[in-house]
Amino acid sequence: MTASEIRALFAVASRPEVVSLAGGMPYLSALPLDVVGATIGNMINERGAVALQYGSGQGDPQLREQILDVMAPHQIEAHPDEIVVTTGSQQALDLVTRIFVDPGDVVVAEAPSYVGALGVFSSYQAEIAHVPLDDDGLIPEALDETLTALRRAGRRVKLLYTVPNYHNPAGVTLSAARRPRILEIAERHDVLIVEDDPYGLLGFDGDPLPALRASSSEHVIYLGSFSKTFSPGVRVGWAVAPHAVREKLVLASEAAILCPSAFSQLTVSTYLETHDWKHQVGLFREMYRERRDAMIEGLEECIPQARRTHPQGGFYVWVTLPEGLDSKAMLPRAVTERVAYVPGTAFYADGQGRRHMRLSYCYPTPSRIREGIRRLATVVNAELELQETFDSRPGARPGGPGPRAGVQSPGPEIT
Amino acid sequence: MTASEIRALFAVASRPEVVSLAGGMPYLSALPLDVVGATIGNMINERGAVALQYGSGQGDPQLREQILDVMAPHQIEAHPDEIVVTTGSQQALDLVTRIFVDPGDVVVAEAPSYVGALGVFSSYQAEIAHVPLDDDGLIPEALDETLTALRRAGRRVKLLYTVPNYHNPAGVTLSAARRPRILEIAERHDVLIVEDDPYGLLGFDGDPLPALRASSSEHVIYLGSFSKTFSPGVRVGWAVAPHAVREKLVLASEAAILCPSAFSQLTVSTYLETHDWKHQVGLFREMYRERRDAMIEGLEECIPQARRTHPQGGFYVWVTLPEGLDSKAMLPRAVTERVAYVPGTAFYADGQGRRHMRLSYCYPTPSRIREGIRRLATVVNAELELQETFDSRPGARPGGPGPRAGVQSPGPEIT
Repeated sequence: MTASEIRALFAVASRPEVVSLAGGMPYLSALPLDVVGATIGNMINERGAVALQYGSGQGDPQLREQILDVMAPHQIEAHPDEIVVTTGSQQALDLVTRIFVDPGDVVVAEAPSYVGALGVFSSYQAEIAHVPLDDDGLIPEALDETLTALRRAGRRVKLLYTVPNYHNPAGVTLSAARRPRILEIAERHDVLIVEDDPYGLLGFDGDPLPALRASSSEHVIYLGSFSKTFSPGVRVGWAVAPHAVREKLVLASEAAILCPSAFSQLTVSTYLETHDWKHQVGLFREMYRERRDAMIEGLEECIPQARRTHPQGGFYVWVTLPEGLDSKAMLPRAVTERVAYVPGTAFYADGQGRRHMRLSYCYPTPSRIREGIRRLATVVNAELELQETFDSRPGARPGGPGPRAGVQSPGPEIT
Repeated sequence: MTASEIRALFAVASRPEVVSLAGGMPYLSALPLDVVGATIGNMINERGAVALQYGSGQGDPQLREQILDVMAPHQIEAHPDEIVVTTGSQQALDLVTRIFVDPGDVVVAEAPSYVGALGVFSSYQAEIAHVPLDDDGLIPEALDETLTALRRAGRRVKLLYTVPNYHNPAGVTLSAARRPRILEIAERHDVLIVEDDPYGLLGFDGDPLPALRASSSEHVIYLGSFSKTFSPGVRVGWAVAPHAVREKLVLASEAAILCPSAFSQLTVSTYLETHDWKHQVGLFREMYRERRDAMIEGLEECIPQARRTHPQGGFYVWVTLPEGLDSKAMLPRAVTERVAYVPGTAFYADGQGRRHMRLSYCYPTPSRIREGIRRLATVVNAELELQETFDSRPGARPGGPGPRAGVQSPGPEIT
């Protein structure tokens, strides 16, 4: 499935009659758009000559102060000078990779991993080494083994990329017990951790676990984002980085875009200042929890044959189909049944993932989610029947492992 | 002068008592900020769920249609599908370089050239070959000679980077007679032209000359920007590129930032739709023409020893100091006299430019510009006196050629 094929599928999936469980778009209609509009209009009226002007390469000083408050629940203590504001956290990921990774270097990442990160690493010709995760997140023993094997093979491992909270796409969270072990292993192997945390505030059971960055300011680059808690359209994210890295990030960002948008930054800053953003995050949590419940109940009821994760926050459930089913081959049939998802192969650099799929519950309403799961069940059951039929005719079985997938760029639709 | 030294100087230069002729910031107070604020507030109220959401990697379709109108005075005929919207045209420059330039490749650029472009080329380890310009812009014979010599030396020349209209920093415009010749030479040597045109609509004598892109859709990537005609703070620029390049640009942009800001794009689109933007550009032209006149008159009156260009649009006058003066060494003394400029060395990759300086007339009022030139004259005259004194004592002359400069990243302040 090429990038353009994925694009075509998403074009179909965006039709109103299709229930899309594919996209990672936050449900923005839950924001008080009239109030936000009035506030931003007023901000332009009063501070337009600053908001519409060039800004600093590192980002607006007041916003960097406010970001400290946003990170406080993660127990991150930092100085505003350690923060670099970027065009979404995607740009931070791109710049970190540009700074550290030479062609042929290895980046270690969870199996599965966020597709946009795999795209960045591939674009810098990094080799991606996957380390498995389970319901408690990245597996420390597997990480240690992989790093040891890579070192013995003489490979240069530059980064460990991880999404500890409400993982995209796996929906799992790195347990409290594992966090210090992951840190210890990365430090022992002298590998810098990139801790990507766009969903951290969207936990369904209160405050998040302490970030990896809370215990190590020298071995961790923390990436944050306003995309899931306020707006992805403003493209405002940030990195918290050790001093030497921070300087390089600013220079690289200035070469890439001169400076992040002052307009977007002052919009976020004004929003944080004038709205009860913590209350709004609470509303988002309740809404997404209800949608998660609808999806989990639907899966239990309609597709009991599939294994699934049980996210405690964030946007995604990771589904493992019964043996022999192929989520990628199945997708066109699912779209015909008016339901869409992202096949698991998108989240691996090495062609794995055909039995998996990512289901998003962030955007559709609970009743649409239930309808989507019913439609998906129809497709899965039809596939299983087909499989039984073919299994009774030896040698005629469809599917099986396809060609190595390689990393595709599926566009911003499946963030 | 290191990047941090330049930063420190700009920090001083931003004090209210200093007349800064350094920055390239448009004078945004000329915009009707109250009306713009009300319009944008209304846009968020009505279309916030789209404006604050993820968008497409290539950019908003309606904005891409509107960009065709903006380019019409340049006689560019294109299809919206050929346009890629970027985070300022700086990002387009970064992506084009990322796609085409491998370490050691050559990029040909005017002497002097836009400092932000030199920074990008250096960050991809390109070698920059400068070709001189005169009052009619890039010199065709010199371009042909340089390209021929590079080819004979077995070098791979990937791009010709040029700012044909109201050049930054030189203030000159590529003449109508030279445009087809530059195109012919680049095509004959099979070098792709990157035509950077942020100032094209800001000519003081009516419509701009036809763009290079108007005559060649296959050998030219045209870069446009709303930074100088509306707002740099929204970070909205674009590239018009041949089909194959356009596809690569979109993929590279998605890896770098997922998608350009929908919020910024809808803001620009709404501004273009609801305001008489052509009238506003006309107001900017009149304002900048008045400021150019103030600067030229000041220079003629107070620093007649200096040569200078006579810009027909844009933001900059390029000054050549009398033999022996060094604009870089002189800058701290100028800041002490409460006037700032950018030393010429910033605009060369090879340490040239010590006799030159870029003076911007875009931001200060005409009376402040005259005051700034008077202060600059004090510094220049003191330097000339000092030179005479030392010249009468053989062997004790200060200044002279310094170490090779290399390209610095001076931050977004001197765009």
